[in-house]
Amino acid sequence: MRAIDIIMKKREAGELNEAEISFLINGYVDGSIPEYQVSAFLMAVFFQGMTARETSVLTNKMIESGSVIDLSGLDAYRAGALVDKHSTGGVGDKVSLILAPMVAAAGAQVPMMSGRGLGHTGGTLDKLESIPGYSTALDPRRFAEIIASCGFAMTGQSKDIVPADKKLYALRDVTATVESVPLITASILSKKFAEGAQHLVFDVKYGAGAFMKTDADARILAESLVRTGQELGRGVTAVITNMDVPLGSMVGNFLEVEESIACLENRDWNCDIVGGVPKVTGRSGDLMEVTITLSAWMLVVSGIAADFAEALDRSLSVLADGSARGKFWENVALQGGDRGAAEKLVGVRDGLTVRDISAPATGFLSRMNAYKVGSASVILGAGRNVASDDVLPDVGIEVLHKPGEKVDAGQPLLRLFAREESALDRAEEYLADALDISEDPPRIPDIIHSVVQ
Amino acid sequence: MRAIDIIMKKREAGELNEAEISFLINGYVDGSIPEYQVSAFLMAVFFQGMTARETSVLTNKMIESGSVIDLSGLDAYRAGALVDKHSTGGVGDKVSLILAPMVAAAGAQVPMMSGRGLGHTGGTLDKLESIPGYSTALDPRRFAEIIASCGFAMTGQSKDIVPADKKLYALRDVTATVESVPLITASILSKKFAEGAQHLVFDVKYGAGAFMKTDADARILAESLVRTGQELGRGVTAVITNMDVPLGSMVGNFLEVEESIACLENRDWNCDIVGGVPKVTGRSGDLMEVTITLSAWMLVVSGIAADFAEALDRSLSVLADGSARGKFWENVALQGGDRGAAEKLVGVRDGLTVRDISAPATGFLSRMNAYKVGSASVILGAGRNVASDDVLPDVGIEVLHKPGEKVDAGQPLLRLFAREESALDRAEEYLADALDISEDPPRIPDIIHSVVQ
Repeated sequence: MRAIDIIMKKREAGELNEAEISFLINGYVDGSIPEYQVSAFLMAVFFQGMTARETSVLTNKMIESGSVIDLSGLDAYRAGALVDKHSTGGVGDKVSLILAPMVAAAGAQVPMMSGRGLGHTGGTLDKLESIPGYSTALDPRRFAEIIASCGFAMTGQSKDIVPADKKLYALRDVTATVESVPLITASILSKKFAEGAQHLVFDVKYGAGAFMKTDADARILAESLVRTGQELGRGVTAVITNMDVPLGSMVGNFLEVEESIACLENRDWNCDIVGGVPKVTGRSGDLMEVTITLSAWMLVVSGIAADFAEALDRSLSVLADGSARGKFWENVALQGGDRGAAEKLVGVRDGLTVRDISAPATGFLSRMNAYKVGSASVILGAGRNVASDDVLPDVGIEVLHKPGEKVDAGQPLLRLFAREESALDRAEEYLADALDISEDPPRIPDIIHSVVQ
Repeated sequence: MRAIDIIMKKREAGELNEAEISFLINGYVDGSIPEYQVSAFLMAVFFQGMTARETSVLTNKMIESGSVIDLSGLDAYRAGALVDKHSTGGVGDKVSLILAPMVAAAGAQVPMMSGRGLGHTGGTLDKLESIPGYSTALDPRRFAEIIASCGFAMTGQSKDIVPADKKLYALRDVTATVESVPLITASILSKKFAEGAQHLVFDVKYGAGAFMKTDADARILAESLVRTGQELGRGVTAVITNMDVPLGSMVGNFLEVEESIACLENRDWNCDIVGGVPKVTGRSGDLMEVTITLSAWMLVVSGIAADFAEALDRSLSVLADGSARGKFWENVALQGGDRGAAEKLVGVRDGLTVRDISAPATGFLSRMNAYKVGSASVILGAGRNVASDDVLPDVGIEVLHKPGEKVDAGQPLLRLFAREESALDRAEEYLADALDISEDPPRIPDIIHSVVQ
């Protein structure tokens, strides 16, 4: 077998078989196939795509390139109830903090692998670590123990899993081949499955603050993730959600922990079931509509609930009866967090300077650019421009009003918290064109766009 | 400037500017841009193509990557009358041997750079070197001297010209990016112009024995060569010719020299002008129809003749009056060849075993596969499977009848000359499905398909 024949076959839109994909991935990882052949192959894939069958084989070969987290000792593993969620990234997206304890309380178990903030999007690990004492650095044994104990654990990606993805991603990054749906699909799925998840639910975001700008692009990725996961025999569903506007009312690290605690305490949201799906109102309405929907689908794909209606019922029950909140604090304690210290910090803004961004006119708030708000929170210190930056736990942005609401000229819309006036100046300047006011009520897209299953 | 942005721009079908192409080629040659980025770029070019403007800039930047043959001391250079021909390669293609002396006799000068045989196609250098004493290894000074003396010289590609092409070609060869029209165009044009040609005529072949299998593909390459050459301010014309059948009556090395000498002695062909274009009959009719057409276009693009009619007239005159033949032998002497020894070898088949391939039935010869005949001549020893093989000067194949002719069962169609019976056995076996006989007269495509100017 020769690499050039595989490149040629893909260039001519042929479907690669398992032996060919295996030859290429193994050869790349062991160094027998040079990078210049792999990069030509990746560009051919960019143009010709891959079938779900090819993408599933690629995913498996990437998983096999390294070690996997062994969770086979867990009862949930034997029951096939290990389920994780992956979001393509947004602003104010603290869904994982609420979702993982909900799903655990409802009877599935969640080996949750999260990332750190980079660019305009925040990271679940940074948010969790703003809880005094909380550690996300868990070795595989401790990871499994915490899942067994409270039903979920929160960690970052292990160093030894999917080395093929690390090599491929580094090469894609310098050869303009990042934006390939099958390559993105295999990269995401291989990491998630290698970390021990048996089933997956995706939050595929589209809009101003998302990686995918249009719902059409989001659907293409969602279809690829679902079809490829199903080809691998896994339960996989994708929920396509809007990300034009920050999710919920807080953007930052501990600020988002505060909002998560409030949601788990059933404050700031109210859910009705309309036509079988949740419609959630209140300050954190959009956040909880996404979280409850994802929770229900996680219970469906992991077989905990027989159907979406039952799954929705269980998701709302564990919120209403406080068991999800209980799981949250149980996990905080297991991962070294100090509940008392955290609760004392809620609502405290000591040492921070505050500035409000106000409505320039009376009318309807018609646009609040999530990308701009996310980037402004990075300017304030909540996120990173490059991976080596440190983040501040306390700074960030409170969203006081959302698009669709009627506002008066001079009414505060965003509240910025920083440690220095200069950061407030820069963030305010950056936000100059982030907000629009219209005379007529704007058309606001539904937060849940559609579901691919 | 960053290589990745250039790859991305091409990936998204953008037109690259001179600075971008220069950055990429210079960076590749000096090693500052790694091969994995260049190969991704080449694959993006394969899918997105290049405009004539981009291809012309690429050609220039490739030329500038190395030294060029300086022919500025020649009178013809100052007159703008240095013209070469390039063929995309065929079987029995000894056109250069007849064409160069014709064009030189008609008043232009020809710095002819040729190649060696590889695969099923023969090479002009191998054919010339079958003339006892003839050397194609000329240093640039001697190359210019011979052109000044007899109007043309025949050599191989210099080592120092277009190093960017050598690096790019080697990379394309292992990354499945050979078959890209703009990359082929820049590769051909950069070498030809770096060797000192001011203007060019192309013989773009299509058919069973050609690189391009269809006339449509040949036209795409022809258009690219002509438009790019014109963008560079050169006189460039392409003649699209058929290569389903071996050209002329001989396939081999000295066998093709024999046919060339016969043609220069006005034997085996007869030309009429029909509708302003040459129609040539006889054993070497197809060969001479191509050669005379190419000669006329070379005189047009180099400004020696005012139009095609005048150029055609001059081309036929230098054949009729023996001046082309005179130039041929003048060049043989200047390049070290022994005319007497060569003339003594004509028609001599000493030391060779002969075998005829005969018609299996009575009817019309409807197909004689040029690829098969060329490959059979390689089996006999006339060509190379790999570049390091040696070739035999005397072996080869005589084509006794051409498609369209009526033949009787058992009548010899091909005559094979070899040094060993075993080679004849293998060649005969290989030729088993190279010939077809039909009851009805077959449709034979014109040897000259069309002209792109």
